[in-house]
Amino acid sequence: MAVYTAVDDEGLAAFLRDYDVGALLSAKGIAEGVENTNYLVRTEAGTYILTLYEQRVDPMDLPFFLGLMRHCADRGIAAPQPVARRDGTLLARLCGRNAALVTFLDGMATRRPRPAHCAALGRNLAAFHSATADYARRRPNALGLAAWGPLFEASRAHADGVVAGLTEVVDDELCVLARLWPTALPEGIIHADLFPDNVFFVGDRLSGLIDFYFACNDLLAYDLAICINAWCFEPDGSFNVTNARAMVRAYDAARPLDDDEREALPLLCRGAALRFCLTRLHDWLRVPAAALVTPKDPRPYYDRLRFHRTVDGPADYGL
Amino acid sequence: MAVYTAVDDEGLAAFLRDYDVGALLSAKGIAEGVENTNYLVRTEAGTYILTLYEQRVDPMDLPFFLGLMRHCADRGIAAPQPVARRDGTLLARLCGRNAALVTFLDGMATRRPRPAHCAALGRNLAAFHSATADYARRRPNALGLAAWGPLFEASRAHADGVVAGLTEVVDDELCVLARLWPTALPEGIIHADLFPDNVFFVGDRLSGLIDFYFACNDLLAYDLAICINAWCFEPDGSFNVTNARAMVRAYDAARPLDDDEREALPLLCRGAALRFCLTRLHDWLRVPAAALVTPKDPRPYYDRLRFHRTVDGPADYGL
Repeated sequence: MAVYTAVDDEGLAAFLRDYDVGALLSAKGIAEGVENTNYLVRTEAGTYILTLYEQRVDPMDLPFFLGLMRHCADRGIAAPQPVARRDGTLLARLCGRNAALVTFLDGMATRRPRPAHCAALGRNLAAFHSATADYARRRPNALGLAAWGPLFEASRAHADGVVAGLTEVVDDELCVLARLWPTALPEGIIHADLFPDNVFFVGDRLSGLIDFYFACNDLLAYDLAICINAWCFEPDGSFNVTNARAMVRAYDAARPLDDDEREALPLLCRGAALRFCLTRLHDWLRVPAAALVTPKDPRPYYDRLRFHRTVDGPADYGL
Repeated sequence: MAVYTAVDDEGLAAFLRDYDVGALLSAKGIAEGVENTNYLVRTEAGTYILTLYEQRVDPMDLPFFLGLMRHCADRGIAAPQPVARRDGTLLARLCGRNAALVTFLDGMATRRPRPAHCAALGRNLAAFHSATADYARRRPNALGLAAWGPLFEASRAHADGVVAGLTEVVDDELCVLARLWPTALPEGIIHADLFPDNVFFVGDRLSGLIDFYFACNDLLAYDLAICINAWCFEPDGSFNVTNARAMVRAYDAARPLDDDEREALPLLCRGAALRFCLTRLHDWLRVPAAALVTPKDPRPYYDRLRFHRTVDGPADYGL
């Protein structure tokens, strides 16, 4: 949540002359996005978000991300639309960084997801999965099943200092998931990071999905499992089955889950909880002294993991 | 340049129901202003800046500041206009802080002021001084002549560690200014902080003066002296007399300076340079370890002070 790169008026005005958006009217650095610098830019033609990609985004992935946003917007998904430059390209350079201009979406993240939000998310997630079925580019999931073991090895020595007993549970979970993780479920493009921060609403209407910078190819139902983890637990850690039921049923109504996906849902939820527990643990143990960003606590995802391990079957999620 | 207070969607939507601005569409925390938290807010009725006043702003001063902005906007000064709530008041509460909603102004700060910018600033500063002549509230300048001695005492012990010889020059300057500081010049409301950060342009057109939170009653020509210091020196410290001439002449054309003001200008410029040198020195020596804001270097204002001490008369500023 920081503006890492300062853009000046003359540099930005020159940058915008490569786009057909009229003259620059204003630009405000905004506290949005953890990895990149974002400006809210107004020009004679409208309002945009300018993103400068900082070092944590691999430049090789940018065509995948920007093409995906364009693909989604072209198919009616509520997503920011990259604005093409006069030469037709989506990617540009500014202040020594890769940069892109995308359309601005109204709406705000909700801090307290209610069933109406979750139903809207389920519907829109299914529409996203359907709309991206014919997206041509591929990107493997760098934070999928195969990454979890090595990720934990990098934190193992200090893991029990964060939560007593964590090592034993994670080791057991890694074994179970390696053995049982489904391989034959429907695959496609997943968003992979649809936390409440990345979904905008105007009232109860979902107005936008943002931040496609973890999107990749993986099991579609795993994306739903990520959302169950991110949207259906209360601050005290309790599972909100009403939210889950609203989300899963709305998803299923728009893209029916097959029998294997339904059966796998508890396991996919365990995997999703483990993934966020491990990445947060990794960052938690490596906070730079002068951090601009507060790392996220891994413990709520450890608690979710333990919840999912007690689940009997898909009915527990409202299916 | 930080968002100190996080505002959530439900709290903000409820807050806005006290205003006649329609429903909330979006809100982005913006990296603008050093003292307060600012959000760029879009509603059905338009675009606004929401300011949450953090601890460095005295709540007792808020009626003065908000009334001044309202007074200016009513008289055609390009300034943010506070939006009244349904009950007619300008000040509200949000997240345990005083808060106000003001209209959004297009435009961007310029990082390289050119003569056209300086002339526009001079014209608009004179218009501001004229428009506020009938503003009813008063606020003494807490950072005026009387404050400079005590301010330096608080930094004296470490001052020469920042710039060798600073103590001797400042002590001498404090004596000279105490003896010669004019008392009979035209007084009124001064902005007192019209740095390039606080002046917006669309192209060369001045579109807004912002950040009225240092405004107070003092000598009008002292405000011009602050602007000369802030706008008419190059990054290498050299004085840009073309900028100064453009600014001072444009000001003088709109609000003619009397003979005493002209004669006093070099001394007022020395005072303005000293004021910013001392406040920056004070903050420079007291950077909190976890500072969100980088303190400003006092040395460029020490260099300006030494320049103004060599000036022969108002002709050196283009008068």
